[in-house]
Amino acid sequence: MEYPLTLTQILKRAKRMSGGVGLIGKDSQGKIHSTSYAKSYKRICQLANALQKLGIRPGDRVGTFAWNSLEHFELYFAVPGIGAILHTLNIRLFPDQLTYIVQHAEDRILFVDVDGVPLVEKIAQNLSTVEKYIIMGAPAHFKTSLTPYQHYEELIASESSELDWPALDERQAAGLCYTSGTTGNPKGALYSHRSQFLHALGISAAETLGIRSTDTILVLVPMFHANAWGIPYAAALVGARLVLPGRHLKPADSAQMIQDFGVTIAAGVPTLWMGLLEELKKGKYKTDSLRALVAGGAAMPRALIQSFETELKIPVLHAWGMTELSPLGTCSGLLDTDRELEAEVRLSRKARQGSAAPCMEMRIVDESGVELEWDGEVYGELQVRGPWVISSYFKDTSGEVQFTPDGWFKTGDAASIDPTGSMMIVDRKKDLIKSGGEWISSIALENALMCHEKVQEAAVIGVPDKKWSERPVALVVLKKGAEVSVTELQLELLKLFEKFWIPEVFHFIAEIPKTSVGKFDKKRLRKDYAD
Amino acid sequence: MEYPLTLTQILKRAKRMSGGVGLIGKDSQGKIHSTSYAKSYKRICQLANALQKLGIRPGDRVGTFAWNSLEHFELYFAVPGIGAILHTLNIRLFPDQLTYIVQHAEDRILFVDVDGVPLVEKIAQNLSTVEKYIIMGAPAHFKTSLTPYQHYEELIASESSELDWPALDERQAAGLCYTSGTTGNPKGALYSHRSQFLHALGISAAETLGIRSTDTILVLVPMFHANAWGIPYAAALVGARLVLPGRHLKPADSAQMIQDFGVTIAAGVPTLWMGLLEELKKGKYKTDSLRALVAGGAAMPRALIQSFETELKIPVLHAWGMTELSPLGTCSGLLDTDRELEAEVRLSRKARQGSAAPCMEMRIVDESGVELEWDGEVYGELQVRGPWVISSYFKDTSGEVQFTPDGWFKTGDAASIDPTGSMMIVDRKKDLIKSGGEWISSIALENALMCHEKVQEAAVIGVPDKKWSERPVALVVLKKGAEVSVTELQLELLKLFEKFWIPEVFHFIAEIPKTSVGKFDKKRLRKDYAD
Repeated sequence: MEYPLTLTQILKRAKRMSGGVGLIGKDSQGKIHSTSYAKSYKRICQLANALQKLGIRPGDRVGTFAWNSLEHFELYFAVPGIGAILHTLNIRLFPDQLTYIVQHAEDRILFVDVDGVPLVEKIAQNLSTVEKYIIMGAPAHFKTSLTPYQHYEELIASESSELDWPALDERQAAGLCYTSGTTGNPKGALYSHRSQFLHALGISAAETLGIRSTDTILVLVPMFHANAWGIPYAAALVGARLVLPGRHLKPADSAQMIQDFGVTIAAGVPTLWMGLLEELKKGKYKTDSLRALVAGGAAMPRALIQSFETELKIPVLHAWGMTELSPLGTCSGLLDTDRELEAEVRLSRKARQGSAAPCMEMRIVDESGVELEWDGEVYGELQVRGPWVISSYFKDTSGEVQFTPDGWFKTGDAASIDPTGSMMIVDRKKDLIKSGGEWISSIALENALMCHEKVQEAAVIGVPDKKWSERPVALVVLKKGAEVSVTELQLELLKLFEKFWIPEVFHFIAEIPKTSVGKFDKKRLRKDYAD
Repeated sequence: MEYPLTLTQILKRAKRMSGGVGLIGKDSQGKIHSTSYAKSYKRICQLANALQKLGIRPGDRVGTFAWNSLEHFELYFAVPGIGAILHTLNIRLFPDQLTYIVQHAEDRILFVDVDGVPLVEKIAQNLSTVEKYIIMGAPAHFKTSLTPYQHYEELIASESSELDWPALDERQAAGLCYTSGTTGNPKGALYSHRSQFLHALGISAAETLGIRSTDTILVLVPMFHANAWGIPYAAALVGARLVLPGRHLKPADSAQMIQDFGVTIAAGVPTLWMGLLEELKKGKYKTDSLRALVAGGAAMPRALIQSFETELKIPVLHAWGMTELSPLGTCSGLLDTDRELEAEVRLSRKARQGSAAPCMEMRIVDESGVELEWDGEVYGELQVRGPWVISSYFKDTSGEVQFTPDGWFKTGDAASIDPTGSMMIVDRKKDLIKSGGEWISSIALENALMCHEKVQEAAVIGVPDKKWSERPVALVVLKKGAEVSVTELQLELLKLFEKFWIPEVFHFIAEIPKTSVGKFDKKRLRKDYAD
């Protein structure tokens, strides 16, 4: 049958087959709003009609600057549904980066959460392509210097709640998300309808997140971060209930929503889970509905997995991906066979990045591109391919070096793969430390340090050294009130690593600086601690 | 990325990512053979090379007349991999039907299991398009009148175990499977690479069969029956272990294999499960590895579901599909939320055909094509659409009436849908009995009769009646040694149905005649019992 793999098909199916299923959103004032796929469908039609009246044409970019909200969900379908490209802007970016990205994408309209208006006001004079600002969630007498602007509800109010959706080519672009760009300018990962449809089906596979119609998913991962890992599209595809928390990401807010809505899957970065763990340990919340805490965006420390699984009986699903992968690459954990393994072995498996998602393929290669063995020891650059891996960056040929002639994407990660196909990131290639001609993994040291009961967070960087060319330096954040000596930490590391891996220098600091997407900002650390 | 949705991609991924995963096959002598995706890949290349040497070109049909075997698995990938069409012939068809189908498909080569040779010999003189027979699993000194013929192992022996697979268009035909055709000639459902790829991913969804890399799947559903429900392709896609039992479908064989290989999913028709139930009740086998007994091809009687779930603690996954749907349409059961329902309510939900698989859509319409409500009561013709529904029959325009102008496939089933989206087949449209101007569901009566503890099987047909136009007649097979009066059965039915539904005439018979795919042969029953 002629069935295009488009987001419009997902939307129409959700309306028909899952019309009564709920969508829950928290607005910027913290008020809960409940709707359903059928009701949301009508507003999506209204929005799509309004966008067309604003002159948005197929291929045009429409920017969003918003938290996880019901309006953002509407934009997720309305913009690509009319053939335009949904460009989700990272709210946490610095003004210069934001300006660069909006200008580079040539966004014609910007949808801005009321909370985000002050930030956008600061850069608006430099946004030469933006023709109009649409403000979401603003109170009645709200004022802004953004011009021209209109309220979201005003924009859609008088539009028809029906629409004969245009036929789209499934290979048409649907979404655009810029990577944080640790070197050079940010680059735009462009997603097609087809790749997002397949990704939605892929993360519904039992082998990965296994999203089902009986799930209620708390989406803490921002909708501006690789489309909230594609979860809104997968939820619509299978008819799962969504909980969109807005800007309310505090541990107590999350815990309360898990309890109030019987959340079965919660998805977010490890930093959030650290906070949630402390909150849940207070024992005030009922969380037995939770069947998977999905951790991605950064490696989930082994100790944190252990705390959730053994202390709180909450299963952790450890995933790895990249913006360029839509984002899912691998998943670890919840394997049936692992249930019978010893707790320690099982935990070690879960702390790995895991096995390739269905449809995805991986390989590791050496410097000259020769494939390496899967022995769990040897490591090389991780390369991936699959139906939801991008093939180029938006309007940026400098990214072409990241693709091999035979169609693989170079992740920039150094990884090993064990004989069962479970992958483990050793380090970002550029974060590997070369000392006396040998490689040291900064991530391995960090993970080991973060397993120490007194350590909250730890980052390890390489600093220039006359004798060894580089030496590792550890930056450590201790838990509240904890004290520990450098020697104690060094002895701890010596249990796991050879002597030359052990940092001589430790800095105890209050917080590790992070990038806009919550990762350790090693570029800055290397600069700050170069001496 | 340019990633075609072809079976070749599934094959190549299986080799790379799941090379070590096992494939187990039983040959016609009952001997077990073990191999792996990596080893099988080599033989698939050999076979593909051999086929090309035989002159098989893209679009050509290659027939198979075989049980579930490792060789059949190799054909599943080698034939479509070179762009040809795998045509699986139903071993249980009558000679006339077989001849019609081979001639209609214009099969150029026939791959025949040694067990099937006598049957093919009988019709060979009428198979004008077949150029060569390849015999599988034959002993050394085997002889046949089929000509020319060659042994499978001889065919592939000297071929290279590598192949640079041709680039294929994902919309190219890959498989062909004729429906049993209760009216008119059998019709060929033609599957594309794309539809089979998507179906494989679809049945790996947690919402459906949820096939995972940790599964070991016993495939009792024949590989000539809608590609064994697509399971071999899904298993290869996620890297699950396959157990292919050959012609050994007896309950004791199945039970033994479940125990020996730690089978987690077993897939087959309800008739097989009836036998397995009796076998397992003997308590001789360890079956706690089983996480899902997948029942399809016919409705699984409620009483049978109950016996498996309560007596044996084996979860049943009740699925509905059609050859034209690749075949998965809906799945029932194993819903997390259902776990908290009362046992009776839960069982009733599981006995329904269930909710649409992800990507699939359903509707019910009245005689004039108007959509009907989902109230669980009203019923009308079930229509479906989705990416793995065929759009026409192979070389047969008479099938066009089964498609609506707006792109839906008319299933020919009468069904109701409840407010949660769970579908229940009321009857085949043509098996509905019209009595005194009111409709009677033959299936509802059959299911009720089969819940009676003394009844093994029951079929209900409409027979001409002067006064009422039609009246239901029941054909009943009692369990071994059981006795029951007509009045007792009638009183049982009266608890559930109105008086005019209750058959006046009951025939106690030794066996209900079945079609070649194991369904009640109502055409024959209606003929035999017309008076």
